[in-house]
Amino acid sequence: MWRDRRILDLFGIEHPILLAPMAGPVLSNMAIAVANAGGLGALPSALLSHEQTRDEMAKIRAATAKPINMNFFCHVPPAYDESREMAWREKLSPYYSELGVDPTAPIPVSNRTPFDEALCETVEELRPEVVSFHFGLPPEPLVARVKATGAKVIASATTVREAIWLEERGCDAVIAQGAEAGGHRGIFLTENAGQQVGTMALVPQVADAVKVPVIAAGGIADARGIVAALALGASAVQIGTAYLFCPEAKLVAPHRAALKAAWDDDTVITRVFTGRPARGIANRIVREVGAMSGLPPAFPLAGGALMPLRAKSEPAGSGDFTPLWSGQAMRLGREMSTEELTRTLVREAQERLRQLAGGDSRPHRAANR
Amino acid sequence: MWRDRRILDLFGIEHPILLAPMAGPVLSNMAIAVANAGGLGALPSALLSHEQTRDEMAKIRAATAKPINMNFFCHVPPAYDESREMAWREKLSPYYSELGVDPTAPIPVSNRTPFDEALCETVEELRPEVVSFHFGLPPEPLVARVKATGAKVIASATTVREAIWLEERGCDAVIAQGAEAGGHRGIFLTENAGQQVGTMALVPQVADAVKVPVIAAGGIADARGIVAALALGASAVQIGTAYLFCPEAKLVAPHRAALKAAWDDDTVITRVFTGRPARGIANRIVREVGAMSGLPPAFPLAGGALMPLRAKSEPAGSGDFTPLWSGQAMRLGREMSTEELTRTLVREAQERLRQLAGGDSRPHRAANR
Repeated sequence: MWRDRRILDLFGIEHPILLAPMAGPVLSNMAIAVANAGGLGALPSALLSHEQTRDEMAKIRAATAKPINMNFFCHVPPAYDESREMAWREKLSPYYSELGVDPTAPIPVSNRTPFDEALCETVEELRPEVVSFHFGLPPEPLVARVKATGAKVIASATTVREAIWLEERGCDAVIAQGAEAGGHRGIFLTENAGQQVGTMALVPQVADAVKVPVIAAGGIADARGIVAALALGASAVQIGTAYLFCPEAKLVAPHRAALKAAWDDDTVITRVFTGRPARGIANRIVREVGAMSGLPPAFPLAGGALMPLRAKSEPAGSGDFTPLWSGQAMRLGREMSTEELTRTLVREAQERLRQLAGGDSRPHRAANR
Repeated sequence: MWRDRRILDLFGIEHPILLAPMAGPVLSNMAIAVANAGGLGALPSALLSHEQTRDEMAKIRAATAKPINMNFFCHVPPAYDESREMAWREKLSPYYSELGVDPTAPIPVSNRTPFDEALCETVEELRPEVVSFHFGLPPEPLVARVKATGAKVIASATTVREAIWLEERGCDAVIAQGAEAGGHRGIFLTENAGQQVGTMALVPQVADAVKVPVIAAGGIADARGIVAALALGASAVQIGTAYLFCPEAKLVAPHRAALKAAWDDDTVITRVFTGRPARGIANRIVREVGAMSGLPPAFPLAGGALMPLRAKSEPAGSGDFTPLWSGQAMRLGREMSTEELTRTLVREAQERLRQLAGGDSRPHRAANR
């Protein structure tokens, strides 16, 4: 059914579609639905406690025997910097006043769980078939332990140099994350988020630079994108934003509304929400602070001081302070269940492949008879 | 041979490949070579005098009967702003000192010829089959006169909204210029060059939004990109950077050397060289002034004060002050003649189409027998 079987054989899946591990929107139910439709489901752990991660994996294992991708951030948590934190809160204080939030109330510390000893033990116990990392790779001994479980290890590259780095450190496949992608940029070799490479340019250059199979991500939201990615030399695609339109995606109402209303050029790469560059729909706080302002504290601390503002504004229907993560192809989104979307993407991609070849391959068929 | 014949029939060409009208590198010889190979050759007029434009077109008409695209910038030339000009020269004065350039010598005024009455008369006289515009469209009466000659009118859109705008004003096709593209962004409805859309996301969303055929541009440098663009819904592609590797491309030596050495993430969108956002390989002047600094005067005046620096540094082998225009897929570039590159792209794209369809269409062929 698919000509390039490298990723299918590597992971043991039927179709070359990976659910992007979107921390927040994606839980076990979406992972199960994609797996059941023949793609690779994912469980993102970054916003879960270790206990939640184990519970979610238990649900997945109970529901399906299909392979699963557990995803981890592998940043080094920053030291808390009192002066940066205070400067950020100072910047946000007018919004606290405007929304009637008590500026003296304790502010939650934003956290994203990085991959560590404990999570490595969870991997050793739960034995996911695929483990994916964002922001590079964890320390080598941890990578070795993950690989020793038999899990295939993959990670995101936003440049050719990052892809080569990941292959050299043992990744079984590389996700070429083009600049169109929503959410956090996987960027880890430089801080220069202003020179990120579009999917159309990134995928073939990565495919030329590494021997491992390439998974294309960024701007792929329908069958046209899937077939385009295969044409570029990818062996599979990872799809995020299109799955945010599924009813199962856990989104606050203003985020869902913003996705439906957005235009292709409404997103921006910003570090306002977490301290690391990530693509979302530009909103009030991004415009007023400046998308790449150095003011928000280092990842993931920037988000803490925004939480009280979100707690007030989101229930009132406002996305002014909410990270409205989105890739640039959100206008291709369709509202259908996760499983139905996956099956539809597979069916339409196969139709598109036949269509595309139509005019060109017919004479050759005739000649071969 | 090609399934989607919309652009082929519209322009009267054999293959869906357009030579990007790169002002500077592209002259009549490259236009003739692409036309002879069955693509659409282009003559960019922005850096030519009216007389040169007529001469170049005469050479093209003498060499080939194939259709030709004449390309024009349609900006409104800015008023000369003495204080901005002085601030820019002040910023550059340390470089003048460093290179031993006399800062009191008269500085040339950078010019790009916009489409005007006189060029419209040239079009009426020379009757190119296709006229393309960058930065929107000229005033409506001029567009009407161009269309009255029988020429097909096309223009660049960098967003869905720009594509709709161009279709509403009578464009026969729209060039969807993804963020990967080298040289000047066609952006004209906003000033926000920080939210430009990648080709993978832009092309299908534009194809959904307009009825006219779409030409994909940006990050397309080999057969993989051509087939990907067709998969995304484009009826043809426009290729720029890949043609800069041809010996016929008129490039200064430091530009050619930079293209060969560059990595995918070495380019940046900058207004330093002309005053409008354009993608090139980041070099010293871009890094030191800041890619999107507001200091350089309005387009096209920014370039004037850089000219004496280029005149000194380029012959010495330095590209420190030179616009090193490049798209993000420069690593796919190959050194071969313009005509050979065009024929190679056609042949390889057709092979890629057959390859891609291989696994999927065989069972269907079997079933149909």
